[in-house]
This record gives sequence, C-alpha cells and structure tokens, in this order.
Amino acid sequence: MLEQIHLLAAVTVLGVLEQAYFSLQVIYARRTYGISPPKVAGPPEFERIFRAQVNCSEYFPIFVAVLWPAGLFFHQGLAAVCGLLYLYARYLYFTGYKKSASGRLTPMYFNAGLIWILIGLSGAGILHSLLFHYVGLNVLRLMDL
Amino acid sequence: MLEQIHLLAAVTVLGVLEQAYFSLQVIYARRTYGISPPKVAGPPEFERIFRAQVNCSEYFPIFVAVLWPAGLFFHQGLAAVCGLLYLYARYLYFTGYKKSASGRLTPMYFNAGLIWILIGLSGAGILHSLLFHYVGLNVLRLMDL
Amino acid sequence: MLEQIHLLAAVTVLGVLEQAYFSLQVIYARRTYGISPPKVAGPPEFERIFRAQVNCSEYFPIFVAVLWPAGLFFHQGLAAVCGLLYLYARYLYFTGYKKSASGRLTPMYFNAGLIWILIGLSGAGILHSLLFHYVGLNVLRLMDL
Repeated sequence: MLEQIHLLAAVTVLGVLEQAYFSLQVIYARRTYGISPPKVAGPPEFERIFRAQVNCSEYFPIFVAVLWPAGLFFHQGLAAVCGLLYLYARYLYFTGYKKSASGRLTPMYFNAGLIWILIGLSGAGILHSLLFHYVGLNVLRLMDL
Repeated sequence: MLEQIHLLAAVTVLGVLEQAYFSLQVIYARRTYGISPPKVAGPPEFERIFRAQVNCSEYFPIFVAVLWPAGLFFHQGLAAVCGLLYLYARYLYFTGYKKSASGRLTPMYFNAGLIWILIGLSGAGILHSLLFHYVGLNVLRLMDL
Repeated sequence: MLEQIHLLAAVTVLGVLEQAYFSLQVIYARRTYGISPPKVAGPPEFERIFRAQVNCSEYFPIFVAVLWPAGLFFHQGLAAVCGLLYLYARYLYFTGYKKSASGRLTPMYFNAGLIWILIGLSGAGILHSLLFHYVGLNVLRLMDL
C-alpha cells in the first residue's frame, strides 16, 4: 500500500525542507535588519522576505490538501510532478519577492496555475469515485464506447 | 479503499476552493484600498477582510486534521456533513467579518462548535481503536449487553 | 489498517487541542490588553502571546506533514513519541515566549530538533520504499549480510 503514496510523501517532505529553508531566510533577515521578535514591521526589504515566508506557509497546507487527493484519486506520478513544479515555483516566488514586490508576480501565477491543475485532477478523480460508488457509473468505461 | 475516504477528500478539495475564493477577495480588497504587498496595514475595512482570510487560512489545517480522523475512525458521512457545515460557517464568518468586527462572532462560535464536534468524533473513534488494540476491549460490544 | 495510524491520529488530535488552547490564550490576551480584532499590534506583552500563537499555527501543518510519513514509512510508535515531545516543546515555547522573547529560544531549538528527527525518519523510510520499489534494493536485508 505504501508504494501508492511514497511519491506523495516524498514531495511532502521536500516541501517541509523548503519551508525550513524559507524560515531560516527570515531568521537571517531579522539579524541583518535588526528586527527582533515579536516585531514584524521594518524596512520594505525585510517585510518582503517576511511576507514571502508567511505566504508560502499559508499555502503549504492548501498544497498538501490537493496534492494527496490528486495522487490518490487520479495518478500518483502526475500529482508528484505537479508537486515538484509547485515547490520550484515557490522557490522562484520567494527569491523574486525578496528582490522586489513585482518579482513575486510571475511565479505567483505559476504557483496558482499548478494549484488549479491539482484541484482539477483531484476533482476529476473524486467525482469518478463518487459516481462509480453511488450511481454505478463508470466514466472511464463510458469513454471506451 | 478509496471509497472510505472519497467524501473526506471531496470536502477537503471544496475547502481549498473556498480558501482560493477568500484569497481572491483579499487581492480585490488590496486593489480597492490601494494596499500593495508587502503592506498589510490599512483602513479597518481592508484589515477586516485581510484578518478574516488569515484566520480562515490558520484554521484550515486544523479543520483538515480533525475531519480525517473523525471520518476514518468514527463515520465518514457524518464527518463530511460536519465538514460541509464548517465550510458554510467559514463563508458566513468571512462575509460577516467583512461587514463589521462583531459580524464575525456568531459564525465564529458556529465554526468552533463544529471543530469541537469533529474533535469529539475523532477522540471517540481513536479511543475505541486504541482500547480494542491494546486492551482487547470492544466498547461497542460492551454496550450491546 | 486503522491500527497502523491510530497513534498518529491520536497525536494529531492532541495537537489540535493544543492549538485550541493557544487560540484561547490569544482571546484572553486581547481582553486583558484591550486589543480588538482586526487589530494585532499592541504592547510587547500582547504581541509576544499573539506571535507565539501565529508561530505555532504556522508550524502545525509542517509538523503533521512529517509526523505521518515518519509513522507510515518508518515506525508509528517512534513517530508518535517524537510527536508528543514536539507538542510538549510547543507548550514550553508558548509559555516561554509569553514571559519574554528570549524565553522562546530554548524550546524553539528543541522543537526544531524534533522536526529534523521526524524529517530524518520520514526521509529514511520513504527512501527505503522508493529504492525497494524502483531499484529492487532491500536496504534492510543488505545490512543483514
């Protein structure tokens, strides 16, 4: 059974490592700009790094919550590839936002697109499972006709 | 096996869609009130929408973390119904908070109540599983006597 | 199958209860210092409690995202023990941060250490599963030689 989720688990743990990296960047930025906790306001350079990390943290559970259904109900390998691209796009988002507020925009659209793809894959897979179980309708066989 | 989690997965993905809707509302509010990232402070109208979204994001993983154990260890259908009510209460919370700070209160209690119900269902189901496995005690059979 | 995850589910639900406790502390602090939502700025005493709760919320999904792979791919009991220690360290972090900003430091390192252990357990377990499935390599048997 574990081989049905090991790629999803691998991408999830890589995502945790990425979040750890982002958190360390905030700690370094706090030292560089002398912003001690619990303070979160400071020069724009600091606030961009801080907000980038907050935004990535906020989306992490949303990402995991669509990655797993997409992998379980649609296709593990495809979901894992989308997941890796999402983590790469998050890295570009973080480094782009660090440089300028507008630098976050392109990777943000890339991120959002990948979340929508994972929502689509999850939705299609779950709908198939629900239709098959409650209506007895096998969409895949239907398309074979 | 997937039919034992498809309702939970469906509610989770609906929850992600709701979070996407809340995020879009913040983007629109940023445009309306001219608050560019990384800024998060502004007029109370903006701050209420921003805080509503932050609060919903903060509780999303907590919601998922009790929805799934409640569904797996107690009853999937019941957990899914509580989950749908929770997502509806979150919508009322967001729209209520958008209008006024006090408008968030009633749906907030509704939300909290649903989280407590899911905690109760999870707790009962997990306790049953632990007792059965480690003590050999079948609570359900005990109640049959 | 549920007995392979019941300890993980128990620790997760305990984590939700801890988050509920932290949230209540923020509500009490808001009353004590007269900081009404959507405001989040105030005296350092309030801001420390507020930031402690935000930090714990931010790390909750990250914690869950390494607890479960560590339990599924390595050892459920060991992951659950690390999980309980993590929740205890989070409690020390919250109460330490409440007293002073430096009071959060020791439990913060303790927390981080436990997350790294869970990352290590997850990583080892997942790698073993991937190698076994794609390369046919059984690391455990290899070490037996």
